[in-house]
Amino acid sequence: MLRWVALLGFVSVLSAGSSAQADEGMWTFDNFPKAKLEKQHGWKVTDQWLQHVMRSAVRLAGCSASFVSPQGLVATNHHCVVSCLQQLSTKQRDLVAPGYYARTAADELRCPEQEATQLIDITDVTARIKTATKGLDGAKYQDARKAAQAAIEKECQTSDALRCDVVSLYHGGIYALYKYKRFQDVRLVFAPEKAIAFFGGDPDNFNFPRYDLDASFLRVYENGQPARTENHLKWSAKGARDGDLTFVVGNPGGTNRQLTVAELEYIRDVSLPDTLMSLAETRGLLTEFSRGSKERRRIAETSLFSVENGFKALRGRWQALRDPRVFAAKVAAEKALRARLAKNPARNKELGPAWDNIAKAQTRLRQIRKPYNFIERGLGFNSKLFGIARTLVRASAELPLANEKRLDELRDAALPVVKQRLFSAAPIYDELETLTLTASLTKMREELGADHPFVKQVLGKEAPEELAARLLKGTKLRDVATRKKLFEGGAAAIEAAAAGDTMLTLVRAIDGDARAIRKTWETEVDAVVKKNTELVAKARFEVEGTNQYPDATFTLRLSYGAVKGFEEAGQMVPPITTIGGIYERATGRDPYALPASWVEARTKLDPATPFNVSTTNDIIGGNSGSPLINKEGELVGIIFDGNIHSLGGDFFYDPALNRSISVESAAISEALSKIYGATRVLEELAR
Amino acid sequence: MLRWVALLGFVSVLSAGSSAQADEGMWTFDNFPKAKLEKQHGWKVTDQWLQHVMRSAVRLAGCSASFVSPQGLVATNHHCVVSCLQQLSTKQRDLVAPGYYARTAADELRCPEQEATQLIDITDVTARIKTATKGLDGAKYQDARKAAQAAIEKECQTSDALRCDVVSLYHGGIYALYKYKRFQDVRLVFAPEKAIAFFGGDPDNFNFPRYDLDASFLRVYENGQPARTENHLKWSAKGARDGDLTFVVGNPGGTNRQLTVAELEYIRDVSLPDTLMSLAETRGLLTEFSRGSKERRRIAETSLFSVENGFKALRGRWQALRDPRVFAAKVAAEKALRARLAKNPARNKELGPAWDNIAKAQTRLRQIRKPYNFIERGLGFNSKLFGIARTLVRASAELPLANEKRLDELRDAALPVVKQRLFSAAPIYDELETLTLTASLTKMREELGADHPFVKQVLGKEAPEELAARLLKGTKLRDVATRKKLFEGGAAAIEAAAAGDTMLTLVRAIDGDARAIRKTWETEVDAVVKKNTELVAKARFEVEGTNQYPDATFTLRLSYGAVKGFEEAGQMVPPITTIGGIYERATGRDPYALPASWVEARTKLDPATPFNVSTTNDIIGGNSGSPLINKEGELVGIIFDGNIHSLGGDFFYDPALNRSISVESAAISEALSKIYGATRVLEELAR
Repeated sequence: MLRWVALLGFVSVLSAGSSAQADEGMWTFDNFPKAKLEKQHGWKVTDQWLQHVMRSAVRLAGCSASFVSPQGLVATNHHCVVSCLQQLSTKQRDLVAPGYYARTAADELRCPEQEATQLIDITDVTARIKTATKGLDGAKYQDARKAAQAAIEKECQTSDALRCDVVSLYHGGIYALYKYKRFQDVRLVFAPEKAIAFFGGDPDNFNFPRYDLDASFLRVYENGQPARTENHLKWSAKGARDGDLTFVVGNPGGTNRQLTVAELEYIRDVSLPDTLMSLAETRGLLTEFSRGSKERRRIAETSLFSVENGFKALRGRWQALRDPRVFAAKVAAEKALRARLAKNPARNKELGPAWDNIAKAQTRLRQIRKPYNFIERGLGFNSKLFGIARTLVRASAELPLANEKRLDELRDAALPVVKQRLFSAAPIYDELETLTLTASLTKMREELGADHPFVKQVLGKEAPEELAARLLKGTKLRDVATRKKLFEGGAAAIEAAAAGDTMLTLVRAIDGDARAIRKTWETEVDAVVKKNTELVAKARFEVEGTNQYPDATFTLRLSYGAVKGFEEAGQMVPPITTIGGIYERATGRDPYALPASWVEARTKLDPATPFNVSTTNDIIGGNSGSPLINKEGELVGIIFDGNIHSLGGDFFYDPALNRSISVESAAISEALSKIYGATRVLEELAR
Repeated sequence: MLRWVALLGFVSVLSAGSSAQADEGMWTFDNFPKAKLEKQHGWKVTDQWLQHVMRSAVRLAGCSASFVSPQGLVATNHHCVVSCLQQLSTKQRDLVAPGYYARTAADELRCPEQEATQLIDITDVTARIKTATKGLDGAKYQDARKAAQAAIEKECQTSDALRCDVVSLYHGGIYALYKYKRFQDVRLVFAPEKAIAFFGGDPDNFNFPRYDLDASFLRVYENGQPARTENHLKWSAKGARDGDLTFVVGNPGGTNRQLTVAELEYIRDVSLPDTLMSLAETRGLLTEFSRGSKERRRIAETSLFSVENGFKALRGRWQALRDPRVFAAKVAAEKALRARLAKNPARNKELGPAWDNIAKAQTRLRQIRKPYNFIERGLGFNSKLFGIARTLVRASAELPLANEKRLDELRDAALPVVKQRLFSAAPIYDELETLTLTASLTKMREELGADHPFVKQVLGKEAPEELAARLLKGTKLRDVATRKKLFEGGAAAIEAAAAGDTMLTLVRAIDGDARAIRKTWETEVDAVVKKNTELVAKARFEVEGTNQYPDATFTLRLSYGAVKGFEEAGQMVPPITTIGGIYERATGRDPYALPASWVEARTKLDPATPFNVSTTNDIIGGNSGSPLINKEGELVGIIFDGNIHSLGGDFFYDPALNRSISVESAAISEALSKIYGATRVLEELAR
């Protein structure tokens, strides 16, 4: 599943556009290769088409989506909505397994932590950022860049109904201000049963042929009313057919196609294997935890899905990166670029040292990654309540500061999301908190060592499970009103409450160490990489031209392609599955058990209805929920996955094998009509 | 901990003796570098000394040990005895946590599955094996080699009181017949509390300074009486001191120092990461399982230890192998050897193609490793009851065949161990069986794919947990008498019982597929590697001479070294810890909780008593329990671990950092005397 999860130790950079093959590319809207598209697919896209599609797109947390009616109806994946379903569930009333359909407008349920944004404007701010950082290095470069960014964002974000992000594209080659309309009142309209949305479960994940109704509908509200969304996609009841030209508009989360070799080595040799081992162990913990009771299974379900999905996705990426041919190609490409640059001695003097500087920063990263990840980045304290405590403590220190002096995550531009999460009434489960906090404290002791001063300070004579239990027992932060009071009361309120709250006490005790290691990372790793990848980007633009697409950055992109199968073990896999096929694959046992509604409706359904479809569009995690669009601008499907070969897409695009997978709009219509009786939604889609 | 666990996908080969540095080398007794030792350490070893030490050594399952009295008393590690302790434990009476001391001879408890062997003779049988395989390839080579080996072993093994193994040294450079005296009546004399044996637990494992009383005593019996063991080591109550010359005699399980580059790539890129991910997930499962109840913790304890110990050991090996300098040195060494060989065109014509042939076999291994590991090698069916069923089914088919035609594990030479395990009354825990069988079936579906014909055949429409439950419910193989009847009744008895036994039914249904994939592996991978590494070994002998030690093969070796610390983060770590130190490190919480006996005895103990000691001896997993011996042939310690830097010892020896860790005999004496009142043992040691 293509949900995007930010991973520790990852950095994104720019990507190979000049040598882009076939349907390769996650293009920005202001640099879309119209001529190339026409040459390859014989169709000419208009600016009007592009503008309409851009404004019809929606971004969710880690996912993509689109408007599909003028009343704020949003189509996305089930797996992009499942955390909302879980947050609205209780032991007595589960929404995940049975799904949910709001029969009336009044039944639409507000998601506690969902934000939806709509891109309305892009402005190039490269000059302003580069002027601010000119001639600076290290901490000074970092401070200047952040201050300029914060100022630009603050000027733009005139109200909480807007969201303004300065985005680094081509790894600092271009800085752009992305201005979004922000919706924080997002409600649940329809979600099918989990068993049909994720039919085949982990074994079928990233596989094709596939039979998943991974679709759901939300609605964005403004002032308590459905938002008016003029730009929206027309819903096609037909879906996509073999050979159709298809577009995907959405927010690919991150690719690493143009990292330097030193950065790729770090990912291949350090961050990916470390992350995979950690996910594998967590998977074991959650699997066995879930077996304990039905309720445990329910509360751990989305966590286990995230872990299994992440493990499979990252293992695929890792396999791709460890392919010696892939890596040799990366090494050769870097060598060639540097050789071409060297032909111009003056430019080479300015830009040439960038690669070695980045390599040195990777060496430093290897040295500090463990304390940085465990002490500052949450690997040592995997607990929602810890996160809340840290946000409160840091907000009390940061908010009195000038906007540009604050930690990134507490700048004005970020506050609406911070507050939405901090004041969310979503349940926090003690059993799960105990599991994750104990496991992360144990892992911190294991990785930093029992004799590390920080570990000794945190654990003292306590065992990890004992400390976890004491911390969770002695905090009052489960209560949303308490959080609000502390947030609003600032430093004085925190000071007064800290002695009586174990989590606040811990966070305050370690905050100095945590900030110190973060500062080291920012100054000695991040600033060096950012500064020098700007130079690499410059070199690339000069040598290879600007007809390139940037590496994915969880910002809006457009990719083009076609409905097409692929060859697997010598056999062609046809690009489209049908509803009839799922009844053959079903075994009656999870994850191949059909929900009762589907068993009952079998004879009513047209078995020939296209179900899932494979296309050549170049996408990656974060594109989940993206609309699959035809030339007419109609939504013909919703992206939810890639085939197993697409996982190497983090590093390169393989036109022969890389495929994105969507659920066909025709299957969604058929199910809404004949299984779910979701007349209200169908009528709205048909208007 | 240096217990040896055979790992899937591992192959052992020969090792660099000619360039051996400092105290490097796990030497065979018939090729011990006496002159080098004298040159380096100024002491001349006699043949008599070597002979005595060799005959005093004992091999256990996965571990080493030594005789320490003429009445069959055996000293080894606690962690080599813990599975016996667990097998003798019940819900009502746990022996692991409190330890065990047999106050009288009658209290010595027989271990259900322990075998101890004593090496009494080594004969070179290279000529006989090589004559038998001359000019043969593939399946014919494999059959001829096995037949010759089986014949030699059978001739030697005139009774079950002997064990005869043909061992491949220098990866086929030499074949040697190792003749052992076999003891199957092995009884428990003394084991301390687990909390002191494994003080510091997983966080301190492979770390130093260290404070573990990882020691215990067994006794071998013959005809119901303590065996007479004339060759035994004198016990030193003093232990080892800084700078002392030390020897380790024991059975290093396996090293990979002289693998070809192609084989090392397979280990680095495929088998080690796969094994690590699998161990990480299993660790999560067992950790959470153990939290369920005290009884669950008890029954899963040794499994969890094995998994954590294996994970840490293999991760260290993997890190070493991924060091680009290490790998570059391996590549350079192979290149240099091949270049020297190429100077003799005739020899090069004969031996030169061996490397490419091995590389091709690795490619084939990559293709078949998943079905081979899951279908034949047990990764898909992790269950003791499955193992029993497979042994019974295969024994019924194999035992009627001529000895040399049988599967290796059912040749006459192997039968005593097979029967000891098959008829063991050690408990089988249904909860644990359910956990491991469900997990392995799930993993098989994940790795081979839900659509793999074998997976479809095994699972049908059942979910893994459902199949596991049905298999475990419907088998009668928990009953030892039933197993005996089936084993003795042969094919007819199995045939008659199969329909009424789920495990037997499953094993019979899949045995054709399992044998087929094994045959593919034997013919296309194993035979090719064995045949061609014989040629590599020949080339190495010719080019580099025979003054080398072979890679470890879990056969008896002697290493020499000295008591010495090492440098860590710029500081010298002293080589000896004392009993006083443990009281400073103790926190009162597992794994840093002292047992009550140690808390109470504190004032009685001499705090200056040496506890654990670091030496430069070159050892590896399998050496656990090996005696650490001084020049006088006295036992001054018992090897139980290596420092973290020693883990790269799988591939190379680093004299600056590689250290083995022993528990000092002085600490054992002090504890036996002042804590455990083990007068009977102390008196026997002093005689």
